[in-house]
Amino acid sequence: MADPLPSWNDGAAKSAIVAFVKATTDPASKDFVRQEDRIATFDQDGTLWVEHPMYAQLAFALSRLAELAPQHPEWTTTEPFKSALAGDLAAFARFTMADLEQLVAASHAGMSTGDFLGIVRAWLAKATHPRWKRPYTELVYQPMLEVMQFLRANGFKTYIVTGGGQAFVRAYAEHVYGTPPELVIGSSLETQFEYDDDGKAVLMRPPKLLLYNDLAGKPQDIYLFLGREPRAAFGNSTGDQQMLEYTQAGGGTRLMTLVLHDDPEREYSYGPEAGQTDSKFGAFTPALYDQAVSKGWNVASIKRDWKRVFPFES
Amino acid sequence: MADPLPSWNDGAAKSAIVAFVKATTDPASKDFVRQEDRIATFDQDGTLWVEHPMYAQLAFALSRLAELAPQHPEWTTTEPFKSALAGDLAAFARFTMADLEQLVAASHAGMSTGDFLGIVRAWLAKATHPRWKRPYTELVYQPMLEVMQFLRANGFKTYIVTGGGQAFVRAYAEHVYGTPPELVIGSSLETQFEYDDDGKAVLMRPPKLLLYNDLAGKPQDIYLFLGREPRAAFGNSTGDQQMLEYTQAGGGTRLMTLVLHDDPEREYSYGPEAGQTDSKFGAFTPALYDQAVSKGWNVASIKRDWKRVFPFES
Repeated sequence: MADPLPSWNDGAAKSAIVAFVKATTDPASKDFVRQEDRIATFDQDGTLWVEHPMYAQLAFALSRLAELAPQHPEWTTTEPFKSALAGDLAAFARFTMADLEQLVAASHAGMSTGDFLGIVRAWLAKATHPRWKRPYTELVYQPMLEVMQFLRANGFKTYIVTGGGQAFVRAYAEHVYGTPPELVIGSSLETQFEYDDDGKAVLMRPPKLLLYNDLAGKPQDIYLFLGREPRAAFGNSTGDQQMLEYTQAGGGTRLMTLVLHDDPEREYSYGPEAGQTDSKFGAFTPALYDQAVSKGWNVASIKRDWKRVFPFES
Repeated sequence: MADPLPSWNDGAAKSAIVAFVKATTDPASKDFVRQEDRIATFDQDGTLWVEHPMYAQLAFALSRLAELAPQHPEWTTTEPFKSALAGDLAAFARFTMADLEQLVAASHAGMSTGDFLGIVRAWLAKATHPRWKRPYTELVYQPMLEVMQFLRANGFKTYIVTGGGQAFVRAYAEHVYGTPPELVIGSSLETQFEYDDDGKAVLMRPPKLLLYNDLAGKPQDIYLFLGREPRAAFGNSTGDQQMLEYTQAGGGTRLMTLVLHDDPEREYSYGPEAGQTDSKFGAFTPALYDQAVSKGWNVASIKRDWKRVFPFES
């Protein structure tokens, strides 16, 4: 049999994933799970693709604010817009939830769902990551693509459960991850049903948050969308803690995995070993590390466990 | 080839369903739809199962209120509880949305998601419909079960999109319709992530409405869950109008179907031909009928188009 995870080094992290799939899909196993119940959930930012130096969606929001700024001269003197337009990363660290909601409202709302999809896709086609000078959609982790594919080949449905915007991630998830829109759960604005000038039904995006899909929001929304606990969950930060706890609470054989960012040469280092107790984008705190150890969660170190990070590496 | 819809009489309604499936699944057809995009949505009450003399879920709520009443002596003198406990159907017709929310809060909230599932299943196991003296879960429409199966056999995902409670319907949807929980979209309470006494993650049900999945809420929630318009949608009342409009707005070959309740002998009659302009449970108004005709929607008459109504009929 070919190695289902060729970009993983042999070791505990890889073994845990392979053993989980074997235990849950072998009909002779006491941990066998029928196909209908094979559900795996993946955080996106920092778990499936790069989240530093800032979330791709934040780069999108800033680009869109810059585009809209000429129509909003008041933004040059009003926070949080002033700092956002200046690209002041230090100011971002001080933004409150209310500030972020204002930025999201100004950059993500006020158009139809179809128009928003077009805006995101147009940005993705031209935007590049500041370090690799490649489209953000190329900065996905090859080892995690292999995990998704391995699980799917074994009858698992692989959901993305992201703190990022659901409509944003859906704009590329099928193309990039093979994940169709109905398998993307994310933070969401409300929509509003209206009729356009031709009397045709259309959904608009008012600036009103419906789901904040991070922290406790992740298990809450997994329940809303799926009605049950995942069998396997993958994350990389404190925003994923409750999703992993909820997965484990389901009982039986479950796989809880955290990706550890400890490789500044090939990617970034912002885990507990980097002496960081917090990171604005994807905090993997020492407390979370301790919890992973004490609860028997799987920790995948990028430095130690990943042979290759990106698909474009030879 | 065997008839995929044996409980349907030959006629325009049946032909429209068969023609839609053929057009969207024949690779040689100009209307071919790739399998990933084959999505069909079904209203539940009045479309998949009986909704008269009252919604099954309302019967559940009343039964639960009666069970809880001894702990709430104040209900005997306070509306809407007083009328609800008295089973006063005329009073129900006057209940406001706020009244109904109070009844839902008292009967559906305040426990964990797992406990609620157990409560619903225990009720379903003993409750019977007043007319047929059979469990509610037997009062499903055989012709519609065949439509669901026919669509699935042709690569469609068949979602239930109900104004009823998502958690309520999920308690039996897999068993009754072959519809797993993740394909049930319904009105939903918020959930709240907590830890139980053993420190285990658990979701509680506070009395707070998150999604009201009726009328405009249907397309809004379809977008939230799926990110796109269905190819086919089935309903029976004004609560389904916007879902059908949203389906049609997707363009191309789409199937919009309304079930018409016009058979008082075998089921009930509360459509426009019954002279009813409104019904508390499943209003099919003359205006909706006119819209169906003018927009080319498919209308399936129970009297004319269904050879058999229930699975238990010989």
